[in-house]
Amino acid sequence: MEKWRAGRRFLRFSSCTTPRSNPNSRTPIPMHVSGSGNYQNWKLHHCFRYLTGNRVPVRASIEKGKGVHGNGVRFQFRCFGSASTTVPERNPSFSMLSSDDIEYFKGILGEKNVVQDEDRLLTANTDWMEKYRGSSKLLLLPKTTDEVSQILNYCNSRCLAVVPQGGNTGLVGGSVPVYDEVIINVGLMNKIISFDKVSGILVCEAGCILENLITFLDAQGFVMPLDLGAKGSCQIGGNVSTNAGGLRLIRYGSLHGNILGVEAVLANGDVLDMLGTLRKDNTGYDVKHLFIGSEGSLGIVTKVSILTPPKLSSVNIAFLACENYFSCQKLLIEAKRKLGEILSAFEFLDNAAMDMALNKLEGVRNPLPPSLHNFYVLIETTGSSESSDKEKLEAFLLHAMEIGLVSDGALAQDINQALSFWRLREGIPEALQKSGAVYKYDLSIPVEQMYDLVEEMRTRLGAPTKVVAYGHLGDSNLHLNISAPQYDEKILAQIEPFVYEWTSKHRGSISAEHGVGLMKANKIYYSKSKNTVQLMASIKKLLDPQGILNPYKVLPHSLST
Amino acid sequence: MEKWRAGRRFLRFSSCTTPRSNPNSRTPIPMHVSGSGNYQNWKLHHCFRYLTGNRVPVRASIEKGKGVHGNGVRFQFRCFGSASTTVPERNPSFSMLSSDDIEYFKGILGEKNVVQDEDRLLTANTDWMEKYRGSSKLLLLPKTTDEVSQILNYCNSRCLAVVPQGGNTGLVGGSVPVYDEVIINVGLMNKIISFDKVSGILVCEAGCILENLITFLDAQGFVMPLDLGAKGSCQIGGNVSTNAGGLRLIRYGSLHGNILGVEAVLANGDVLDMLGTLRKDNTGYDVKHLFIGSEGSLGIVTKVSILTPPKLSSVNIAFLACENYFSCQKLLIEAKRKLGEILSAFEFLDNAAMDMALNKLEGVRNPLPPSLHNFYVLIETTGSSESSDKEKLEAFLLHAMEIGLVSDGALAQDINQALSFWRLREGIPEALQKSGAVYKYDLSIPVEQMYDLVEEMRTRLGAPTKVVAYGHLGDSNLHLNISAPQYDEKILAQIEPFVYEWTSKHRGSISAEHGVGLMKANKIYYSKSKNTVQLMASIKKLLDPQGILNPYKVLPHSLST
Repeated sequence: MEKWRAGRRFLRFSSCTTPRSNPNSRTPIPMHVSGSGNYQNWKLHHCFRYLTGNRVPVRASIEKGKGVHGNGVRFQFRCFGSASTTVPERNPSFSMLSSDDIEYFKGILGEKNVVQDEDRLLTANTDWMEKYRGSSKLLLLPKTTDEVSQILNYCNSRCLAVVPQGGNTGLVGGSVPVYDEVIINVGLMNKIISFDKVSGILVCEAGCILENLITFLDAQGFVMPLDLGAKGSCQIGGNVSTNAGGLRLIRYGSLHGNILGVEAVLANGDVLDMLGTLRKDNTGYDVKHLFIGSEGSLGIVTKVSILTPPKLSSVNIAFLACENYFSCQKLLIEAKRKLGEILSAFEFLDNAAMDMALNKLEGVRNPLPPSLHNFYVLIETTGSSESSDKEKLEAFLLHAMEIGLVSDGALAQDINQALSFWRLREGIPEALQKSGAVYKYDLSIPVEQMYDLVEEMRTRLGAPTKVVAYGHLGDSNLHLNISAPQYDEKILAQIEPFVYEWTSKHRGSISAEHGVGLMKANKIYYSKSKNTVQLMASIKKLLDPQGILNPYKVLPHSLST
Repeated sequence: MEKWRAGRRFLRFSSCTTPRSNPNSRTPIPMHVSGSGNYQNWKLHHCFRYLTGNRVPVRASIEKGKGVHGNGVRFQFRCFGSASTTVPERNPSFSMLSSDDIEYFKGILGEKNVVQDEDRLLTANTDWMEKYRGSSKLLLLPKTTDEVSQILNYCNSRCLAVVPQGGNTGLVGGSVPVYDEVIINVGLMNKIISFDKVSGILVCEAGCILENLITFLDAQGFVMPLDLGAKGSCQIGGNVSTNAGGLRLIRYGSLHGNILGVEAVLANGDVLDMLGTLRKDNTGYDVKHLFIGSEGSLGIVTKVSILTPPKLSSVNIAFLACENYFSCQKLLIEAKRKLGEILSAFEFLDNAAMDMALNKLEGVRNPLPPSLHNFYVLIETTGSSESSDKEKLEAFLLHAMEIGLVSDGALAQDINQALSFWRLREGIPEALQKSGAVYKYDLSIPVEQMYDLVEEMRTRLGAPTKVVAYGHLGDSNLHLNISAPQYDEKILAQIEPFVYEWTSKHRGSISAEHGVGLMKANKIYYSKSKNTVQLMASIKKLLDPQGILNPYKVLPHSLST
């Protein structure tokens, strides 16, 4: 029990910043982190910059010590799972872009915001993993809702297909063109419209970078109910359109609960003003929810209203070992009950994940030496009172050890220790990268059955693959990874469709938080019933009869034309 | 400062029970409350029973002492606001019920569950306030989703209009027929299907009485994220269909965040299985949200899946006085910040409300004597640690007094004191009843502007009316009441449409939590834009082309035929 140490209020790190001096360069650039933001910001391996057509992926390597400095490198991530995405033929009913179209757009937006520059188009045509690439000849940068409305009205009348694009940080090919769709990016619509300090309700334009909103709210004593690795680039409109999950979901719930209002422009240019700022409003169908998570295929989100909780000052982190998966489950139940209102993260890693992290990541060490345990759990609490939160967490940990749920554990006593705990959990993707080919699956599965899939997969595949499991246990979100010496179609055939069928059989979701995009459009039936998908297609047809908005995405190709 | 006393863990009272020995009687019956449930259950003035056609409204009078006993009385509530609801002509395209239809339904449901008994039909045709009354000749009581599907498929093919009815506890005439619509009540579909103790996810049939779910969860160590005065009668399917708000919204958010899945039957009998049990699922449009709050006009909800939080053991209540509305607002900001994660209620009363409560309610006394203050705030905290919660609340109260936000206050030291505080807040509707005619408005208005409406209304109306304001300040939900010696069209003409126009101008909602129903179908434009209402109507047409589901409700009559 000597390892339990008093929790301490953590020092806070600043937001991630990247120099903007060379906007046209695609060369990796250095990135610096300093100051007084949230310590979670060190998770920079997802952080990159996207500024009106200029995207610079970077990956940080965390240095131990007083500060954190990152070295920009090309992001080498490759997701081999579902690599064989079927791409349908270009829909011949869409018009080809003409010089008259371009002149029309220049008349609305001005010369500068009608982008035809090849470098910028290449960036906007390509997803950040460089897995998907379109061939659009036009990027439009509207500055107002009215401009978005005029653009869409025109595109609809001309039957020109469009792709709404935010920070282009998606993982499923949803934010880049498949063919020559016109790219519409609302990144210039980045104003904060209002903030009500009494109710904590923020209203802003859709192009606001998530991190800028976090910084703004921090100064007001509030927090965004949403936080992601990509916060330095992703836009709130994109977050809403993809129903982004992220790190705070266990505490604050999904965007369907936190987004109070939306302004969206339909395919025909009609503006839907649903920008309510009320927690309670029962006047008719709550149609704004259609735009949360529809990946820009029903309309372009131009403004949002968000309920933000007050900032809490006390953060504590514990890193624990469990001998079996059942203990992890029991520990989750206990944590929800005993920590209740202050629990803000409940993450898990299995033995294989920890082994890989310790072997492949630089500068990490086993937090619970000497040997490896079967499972690890990272618990974070966030509350308003340092002394009582600490007391509550310590009592919980003591109880968990006494009843045998936890076999060993450590409580972070300073920011470095907290960072080192998070580094192990968040460094696993990087460790997997370094280990060879990796087949990645982001699944929601009921907690009780979740690890059965991992064990079945391990038995099914055998050597030389390694099945590595970790994820947000508190949200039933499993990151299942199969590491192999190299990419092999035979391995993929053993994994898919088995992994989707297994998930479907257990009423899980084949996309916990990344969406459908192009990658999983034809796999939606694994998680949704035929009638439900048919209703989605009917709604798409109702709102976008010509299908010009983000074509080939979200819905099965058999239904989307 | 002597009034601050240590918070104590409250004794708990049982759920409200009504004897079920005489199911056909419409005579008020005694009601008893005892045992070990939540103390909030004493708020029985809304509680009544509805069991397959038998509705017995009761109102409790709370006796001080060791127990709480209620005496059943006819509920005398009359809401005069919006009394002049325009009822459209019966839609002539709907068929008239034939004996063949009845035989067909008997073939599906059996003789017993095809109800034609006049007494039971009278009850089912009438809302609990006896403000709306239809003339249906048929009440159907399906026991399975398949039966619901067969019924709707048949009704759709015959163009027979239907009204989905739950506990019939609605306040806007949404749950009773307008003309001869067939009433479908899923009250016999009342099974709990599953409960996952790890994730806290409950799956049940739509006819489950809310209170039964609360009791079930209590035994499992969990709570419903929803609690209402009508919990003894209302059904979870009805709660979902009306997006019920209730007492726990400030803490756990709306049903759009807590309902994880829905099974619903469309007008044509198609079953939509959207009964997910996952916190994260980003596969396509989240169409279940269309059924949350659509008041049975898009489909009949037959099963639901709900995320339930763990039960927390420590409850504390403080009753505070503020000298002005600005202090109430500041206090709310401070409470959110300082109490943060344990805040579970923030209610306010103005001087007129307190004066009326003290004068009209029996057995109450001024908690902060000798004189009256301008405003009162009731704060409740619910957390997992008795000692730390108490300490946190006391520190907050001390700070609030030191900075002058609060001029006086008391902290409940036992269950009786807690009950007496809640009694003042919850007894206001009863006090208003006793004072003569009352015009009632349930509004959402941004907190900063909320009280301006009260003051403007007071200036506008003058004597002999009394403008009484109270409500859920933490949710921006104002209960605005105008008390007058008797009902007078001239007074109504001074209130409406002014109150709706004012609310609309300040981007408020004319129905915070009660829905639209028949009462406000033609008033929806005060809170929703034309394009949004048009989209609602298009969705209605898509899902229910003949408009057989709950006709004349929710949408403006100009759009609903």
